[in-house]
Amino acid sequence: MEILVVNPNRVDGCTRLIHAAARAAAAPGTTVTTLAPGRGPFELTGQSEVLFSAVGVLEVIARTPADAVVMAGFGEPGKEAAQELTAAPVLDITECGPLLARTLGASYTIVTSTAAAVPIVEDRLRALRLDAACAAVLASGQSVPDLVERRERALEAVAGVAALAATEVVVLGCGGMAGMAADVASATGRVVVDGVSAAVKLAESLGVLGLAPARAPRPPVTGWPFGD
Amino acid sequence: MEILVVNPNRVDGCTRLIHAAARAAAAPGTTVTTLAPGRGPFELTGQSEVLFSAVGVLEVIARTPADAVVMAGFGEPGKEAAQELTAAPVLDITECGPLLARTLGASYTIVTSTAAAVPIVEDRLRALRLDAACAAVLASGQSVPDLVERRERALEAVAGVAALAATEVVVLGCGGMAGMAADVASATGRVVVDGVSAAVKLAESLGVLGLAPARAPRPPVTGWPFGD
Amino acid sequence: MEILVVNPNRVDGCTRLIHAAARAAAAPGTTVTTLAPGRGPFELTGQSEVLFSAVGVLEVIARTPADAVVMAGFGEPGKEAAQELTAAPVLDITECGPLLARTLGASYTIVTSTAAAVPIVEDRLRALRLDAACAAVLASGQSVPDLVERRERALEAVAGVAALAATEVVVLGCGGMAGMAADVASATGRVVVDGVSAAVKLAESLGVLGLAPARAPRPPVTGWPFGD
Amino acid sequence: MEILVVNPNRVDGCTRLIHAAARAAAAPGTTVTTLAPGRGPFELTGQSEVLFSAVGVLEVIARTPADAVVMAGFGEPGKEAAQELTAAPVLDITECGPLLARTLGASYTIVTSTAAAVPIVEDRLRALRLDAACAAVLASGQSVPDLVERRERALEAVAGVAALAATEVVVLGCGGMAGMAADVASATGRVVVDGVSAAVKLAESLGVLGLAPARAPRPPVTGWPFGD
Amino acid sequence: MEILVVNPNRVDGCTRLIHAAARAAAAPGTTVTTLAPGRGPFELTGQSEVLFSAVGVLEVIARTPADAVVMAGFGEPGKEAAQELTAAPVLDITECGPLLARTLGASYTIVTSTAAAVPIVEDRLRALRLDAACAAVLASGQSVPDLVERRERALEAVAGVAALAATEVVVLGCGGMAGMAADVASATGRVVVDGVSAAVKLAESLGVLGLAPARAPRPPVTGWPFGD
Amino acid sequence: MEILVVNPNRVDGCTRLIHAAARAAAAPGTTVTTLAPGRGPFELTGQSEVLFSAVGVLEVIARTPADAVVMAGFGEPGKEAAQELTAAPVLDITECGPLLARTLGASYTIVTSTAAAVPIVEDRLRALRLDAACAAVLASGQSVPDLVERRERALEAVAGVAALAATEVVVLGCGGMAGMAADVASATGRVVVDGVSAAVKLAESLGVLGLAPARAPRPPVTGWPFGD
Repeated sequence: MEILVVNPNRVDGCTRLIHAAARAAAAPGTTVTTLAPGRGPFELTGQSEVLFSAVGVLEVIARTPADAVVMAGFGEPGKEAAQELTAAPVLDITECGPLLARTLGASYTIVTSTAAAVPIVEDRLRALRLDAACAAVLASGQSVPDLVERRERALEAVAGVAALAATEVVVLGCGGMAGMAADVASATGRVVVDGVSAAVKLAESLGVLGLAPARAPRPPVTGWPFGD
Repeated sequence: MEILVVNPNRVDGCTRLIHAAARAAAAPGTTVTTLAPGRGPFELTGQSEVLFSAVGVLEVIARTPADAVVMAGFGEPGKEAAQELTAAPVLDITECGPLLARTLGASYTIVTSTAAAVPIVEDRLRALRLDAACAAVLASGQSVPDLVERRERALEAVAGVAALAATEVVVLGCGGMAGMAADVASATGRVVVDGVSAAVKLAESLGVLGLAPARAPRPPVTGWPFGD
Repeated sequence: MEILVVNPNRVDGCTRLIHAAARAAAAPGTTVTTLAPGRGPFELTGQSEVLFSAVGVLEVIARTPADAVVMAGFGEPGKEAAQELTAAPVLDITECGPLLARTLGASYTIVTSTAAAVPIVEDRLRALRLDAACAAVLASGQSVPDLVERRERALEAVAGVAALAATEVVVLGCGGMAGMAADVASATGRVVVDGVSAAVKLAESLGVLGLAPARAPRPPVTGWPFGD
Repeated sequence: MEILVVNPNRVDGCTRLIHAAARAAAAPGTTVTTLAPGRGPFELTGQSEVLFSAVGVLEVIARTPADAVVMAGFGEPGKEAAQELTAAPVLDITECGPLLARTLGASYTIVTSTAAAVPIVEDRLRALRLDAACAAVLASGQSVPDLVERRERALEAVAGVAALAATEVVVLGCGGMAGMAADVASATGRVVVDGVSAAVKLAESLGVLGLAPARAPRPPVTGWPFGD
Repeated sequence: MEILVVNPNRVDGCTRLIHAAARAAAAPGTTVTTLAPGRGPFELTGQSEVLFSAVGVLEVIARTPADAVVMAGFGEPGKEAAQELTAAPVLDITECGPLLARTLGASYTIVTSTAAAVPIVEDRLRALRLDAACAAVLASGQSVPDLVERRERALEAVAGVAALAATEVVVLGCGGMAGMAADVASATGRVVVDGVSAAVKLAESLGVLGLAPARAPRPPVTGWPFGD
Repeated sequence: MEILVVNPNRVDGCTRLIHAAARAAAAPGTTVTTLAPGRGPFELTGQSEVLFSAVGVLEVIARTPADAVVMAGFGEPGKEAAQELTAAPVLDITECGPLLARTLGASYTIVTSTAAAVPIVEDRLRALRLDAACAAVLASGQSVPDLVERRERALEAVAGVAALAATEVVVLGCGGMAGMAADVASATGRVVVDGVSAAVKLAESLGVLGLAPARAPRPPVTGWPFGD
């Protein structure tokens, strides 16, 4: 089974962390390809960059054959759009982290990157009808570059905030936190779910069970916006 | 006061209808400029085109000085992103139609274009916390080209669906329905609110009252995605 | 256009403040008449006075011709009843403040008069289905006489509470705060929406767009309760 | 124990029906006095009459000593106001019918008088946070005079609508239906709860358990609106 | 009228306290029998004991003739199951405490036994659709043995937590607190509702009004699990 | 990895169907043991049998070592209790079917066995906070014996109801439907999720990711209710 993982930002170190976490979670027979968009913002620091990145993310998904697609941005839009462009099931870590977390506790806390991400994540959870079991969305204050380049310090910050959660289960709410779950868990005693790993396992689960969207993909009626 | 109205699709006739409705609603001293994106999909027939159009919409907003901005796509994302790019208040017809409708009735029905638009509109209303007073989102079966090119037939279809509403108040849920409110009202006996007109009046209201977002605009940290 | 504004209490200074705010918000061609009930409680300090005042408010509305009616009590009942008594659209500042505030932020905080008003406002918002976007209703501790007679001190108190809001947008939740929005905004850096001004602009918006309730008014079947 | 029951309309036959039902439900040692307002609308056919009646209802409550008060209008406002005017607990049949019904089923259907009453009842239930367990509010099409004067036909109509309920438990949603519960139950096989009877039993329950509001009554600060 | 009260645990002192409270609340003509299960856990300290106790509770209810049944465990499941086994109405103190409390205030706080009981109570309230009016569920830290054997200290602890409630009305959320309402009320100035007493009065109310479930009891199709 | 699957009823054919579906879904290295309780009701036709079965289910879980536990009753209680009795994560098909379904669509329809199961499933979903994305719970009218013994006819009935779903995704809401997903999907064109298969894959996912409840198991303080 071939899983395509797409990192919405273009921070190389982040793509590598996401790939490593996806690879570590994957079953022996699963191939993981992790790509960032070929165009678009380097980092997603606000709502406009989130939207700008979507075009590049959709381009990658439309052009890369795969058996399943994992979108590795937490809170970013585009899952519904991506599903129009591929026959493979598209999984969003914003869904998969919380969904797997729900098997381990009736509610959970999401620890995300910066304060600017909090309302983006909250709005997206509400649109996805996943807000009922979410006790809180907390900011760790760590941007993607922080998470990639100052890993030790970032881990400490994430664990510090995770330790404040009112729930036993914590969901890592940023692709740049991929790979941190075990360390945050051992530092805090919490059950810590990483969205990228969760999405890989859910993608494989759909694959084994032969589950996929019923509708055929349809390209945009009025053409692709990508140059070549 | 200068109001910039942005039509997310590139159907010229639709831009003209939106402009006419905005112009008709505006106060004598208000200048209305209505623009479509310079790039992006011609028509928004699905979720991917909705996202692709956002880049062009944001480009127009970032580059066109105005005292207020009206986004004329019903259900489209991007308001929060657009507000990062301009000091002017950004109003979304997805909010303004329902908000003005609420002064006339405790709940309302939205009549939108095609069946594909229904879940897009519903998700957006939920994200905006505007779902509580919305009795239903109904599809008229009319695409934007239908609304522009076969106006008589489209009007009949929209009125036919509006007449089925369980509420006294109906909101027109598509920019391409701009200008239809009076005709739908007289055909059905309902109170019919057009989002474009509502947004223009709300934009002027903010202007007169000196209300605008408290935060200064901030360009995307890692540059614009637009070529030149 | 003629707007009738009704202050539910009979504190003259409050009627004057409401009138000044309504007048300042109104367009050049708009006539504003602001009236208090000719009978009923002087001040609304509890739930019984709120109900007692409604008779006088409805009497004013039934007897005064107007193109639109603004009810200037925040949290008071009676909008639905008033709408039965006049063909003009009836706008309630309890709705109009929050509705206009929603164009400027996804949620807002209401700062009201005394602690006794908090549950009255909360119950009314719930009945109006406007509670979803309201982050909190906070009491300033200032009664209507405080707001009228000790304006400087009251302004300080209102601004002090507004500064505690978790949201960027604040709605002034008492007719007696009419005229305070700019001062509270400059003292706190928040976006501050006054319900009376908002209602005047929304009333004018309905007027320009030709929007009004579809149903004809109907006098009470078993006669008016007013003496002569 | 002395229970004061207040009928918000002035239809004598209705007051008598309410009194009979209250009397039939009361324990041997309980005295029941049932009064209608001395002023105000004869019948409550709309929202304005509902508000007009409240003054007279509050006057009766303020002037009549009792150990408990039952407000016998279904959907009418005023409970909170009435509680300010008396040390006795004030029970509203809009609450008591649904509360007792909840002991017999997880949800219930309310059958009310005319279509005009439906939104009034729905709004009131939402304000009271009693909407979650209410499956539907259905109109029987029977006004208070219908219920009083054409009792047989009205009973048939109420039972006809009750038979359509999706729930096993039905709440009679109008004071004028007092006394009909057993007949509607035997005609439909449903469990039928009458609000007046329920309120009398709940009032007696509070009495036996020594439960009453903690706060002392407080007369309106600026005087009573009643002449004499 | 014969009321069967069932204490889900087997702590004799607790059964006696519950019986005394039920007896004190009952009308002169009411007979109260209070029983604990003949098998099952001594004390309910966790979710498994809660389920284990249900078999014994259902056995008691199936085998003991009564006109009404009161289940005296707060948050325990089984009401729906019990109702299948008897023609008498089954009342659960988890419902009856909050329902009677609602007549005295729009919301209330539940003070329960230990922290482990809090999520059990919260889940049950949500299943029963009684969560909307519940401001908070607070733990007193007192287990059933604490409540029975160290009554003075337990009372102090319960009153200490009740005094922190944000609402005027407090519901005692544990059968072992039966009989404490008056003392907690006088120590805190709150209105304090005991679920056992409330259930007895509601049971008697149903009896007087002739209200009972419409469906006949049905024994389990595949036999009773009880030995002999 | 060893997965223990527990069928709450004692219908042998049902246990075999559940085992086959679990086995078919499991990864090569996974061992699946499927057990029914050694005591308790043969079939769960009502709420009392649901509760009676829980003791036997908990007994099996407490006595059978495993790396993960799957509870194969749809709507049955006991997950929280079971989690107290084992260190292995306990997964409930009532959660796992809907959770996996959510990756394939924003909402889904549950098709359950008989009409009696509908309120049981609805109450459990509400307690689990999984009701928001559930469009409807529909009864197929097929009991567990029907599903086991008249497989062809039952399949037709389940597919017939699934075809009525308003959503693209359907969840099979009964353990006895295990193994039917592919046939129902091909008969209806819907995406059909079987809870048993979903739970097995989610259990394996937790295993691979090293996720398990943080709290150690705790036996009931006052002893086991099982004889020997």
